[in-house]
Amino acid sequence: MTEQILTLDDALSLSERVLEANGFSPDHARAIARTIWQGQRDECQSHGLYRLIVCTHTARSGKVSTDALPDITDAAPGLVRADAKGAYSLLAFERGLPILVEKTRRQGIAALAINHCYHFSALWPEVEAIAAEGLVALAMTPSHAWVAPYGGTKGVFGTNPLAFAWPHADAPPFVFDFATSAAARGEIELHRRAGKAIPEGWAVDADGHPTTDAEAAMKGAMLTFGGHKGSALSAMIELMAGPLIGDFLSLESQAYDAGAGATPYHGELLIAIDPNIFMGGQVAHHTQRAEALFDAILGQGARLPSQRRYEARARSLASGTVSIPKALYDDILALI
Amino acid sequence: MTEQILTLDDALSLSERVLEANGFSPDHARAIARTIWQGQRDECQSHGLYRLIVCTHTARSGKVSTDALPDITDAAPGLVRADAKGAYSLLAFERGLPILVEKTRRQGIAALAINHCYHFSALWPEVEAIAAEGLVALAMTPSHAWVAPYGGTKGVFGTNPLAFAWPHADAPPFVFDFATSAAARGEIELHRRAGKAIPEGWAVDADGHPTTDAEAAMKGAMLTFGGHKGSALSAMIELMAGPLIGDFLSLESQAYDAGAGATPYHGELLIAIDPNIFMGGQVAHHTQRAEALFDAILGQGARLPSQRRYEARARSLASGTVSIPKALYDDILALI
Repeated sequence: MTEQILTLDDALSLSERVLEANGFSPDHARAIARTIWQGQRDECQSHGLYRLIVCTHTARSGKVSTDALPDITDAAPGLVRADAKGAYSLLAFERGLPILVEKTRRQGIAALAINHCYHFSALWPEVEAIAAEGLVALAMTPSHAWVAPYGGTKGVFGTNPLAFAWPHADAPPFVFDFATSAAARGEIELHRRAGKAIPEGWAVDADGHPTTDAEAAMKGAMLTFGGHKGSALSAMIELMAGPLIGDFLSLESQAYDAGAGATPYHGELLIAIDPNIFMGGQVAHHTQRAEALFDAILGQGARLPSQRRYEARARSLASGTVSIPKALYDDILALI
Repeated sequence: MTEQILTLDDALSLSERVLEANGFSPDHARAIARTIWQGQRDECQSHGLYRLIVCTHTARSGKVSTDALPDITDAAPGLVRADAKGAYSLLAFERGLPILVEKTRRQGIAALAINHCYHFSALWPEVEAIAAEGLVALAMTPSHAWVAPYGGTKGVFGTNPLAFAWPHADAPPFVFDFATSAAARGEIELHRRAGKAIPEGWAVDADGHPTTDAEAAMKGAMLTFGGHKGSALSAMIELMAGPLIGDFLSLESQAYDAGAGATPYHGELLIAIDPNIFMGGQVAHHTQRAEALFDAILGQGARLPSQRRYEARARSLASGTVSIPKALYDDILALI
């Protein structure tokens, strides 16, 4: 496949240009473009420049507001609320972040609830942004009700990702960001397109029977990772990033979509903790303990989550470029 | 096996008497006895009256303080710290709880860090106690470094349980409490004693090879549930309930134990969230959404976590009694 090389700067400005050309306000275009650019920089192809096509498609369908400015509310000493008012989540996150950081440094622990947002992005850029402020971060969202609970056969949960970041002073943070479904929905779709069987444990068919047929899986329900434990964790995310912040369940997001197949519409919960406060002022000492944990993992040949992504980032930053298929590049240019 | 029936009241007072007769101060005896009694009431045999034997054994070994009163510190608007000063965790939890509740109601979200405690108990009694105040609760602890990270072969993580509670006004809360190891260490020990093979995926031997030999597993390392995702979650718990609160990693707890085989010594992190604040005052409406989630799970024949435990609780409360093996009862009486 022919590749198109873009400088990092060109990748970012192209993304902004495409989004603005498709009706997004400059603020939204910048927030979305930056996240897409981060995905491409880290070689997460499915969260990279490819997403410009999905975003503009959704914008053209009229579902997503392309210019609503988020309402930021100081809801309590430990809670800031960012109402996205039917736009994508990313500008709401950007506007809520400074207040979350300030609250966390004052309270020790605080939360940012994003409401009424369309959500397509990975959570790691957000927990990384919080960790860049020296804070520990957790993030979670529902999605559409594609995933059956343990022992069940029908979709109730979303793919319900959970992300976590632990800050490092002079290096990228320790970060994980995983779906609580056994596999990403996109993975099953890729198997379906390729006519390949999916592994056991990923899904059940419409009758609730285990299946390795990707087509049947797309019509049935996905399963959670890790049996009843993963299912319990998914329920927690559904409750905390749904009803607890006064927003949709994955079931409600799917009903609201009414078969349109658009980006899920729901809320997001982020929790931040200040190590300066929680470590009782002895940050250097206790941070060193965390490093001992990472050393014990790496020292036996195991990997840390995000390690591959950080290696990709280092490559992109060293070369100053990213690379996408020429066909995708042409599709993106056609959007302007 | 002959069973001994005890009234619920007798089970509680016997537990207190045994603990006091073995040197525990009345305050510690009451806090520990209550937790043990809750385990027996819910028919969690390994967390029931059997634990009196473990507690008194550990007390007699001189490792655990039987009378230190916890130091409670108002560390920040969102953080109360309870230093157990080398005693069991349960009195520290009891003394920290009212301040955690008050802070959560004021801030929206707050945390209780328990430090320098010996820890033997399940986490569900604690998240249930927080939910009884109408709050959402999370709890986590490290333990000893028995569990290898994904892709590794040597113990680094503890069995690192995570517990969660979602309050119900007139019914027991939605609760889960699971180890992030594939199985409980006690399960492997039971297989070893019975000379039975353990399932694949539970452990590796001392050379790092997958094993179904329980004896080899006890000398090797346990594995996390759910592959790299369970491993990432275990790392999060290790960091948050260890260095973040200024306390031991599972590696440090095990080194401190120095082969004595005593109860792990470390910290515990509890986080509480007030739905009144997070739901923006519309508690009835959003609580109803959570009920719709539970109905969607139960309606397809799946179970909720803790459902079996609550059925056991209902049986115990209806009969007013609990039942333990006569041999265990005799062993307990011999401790007085």
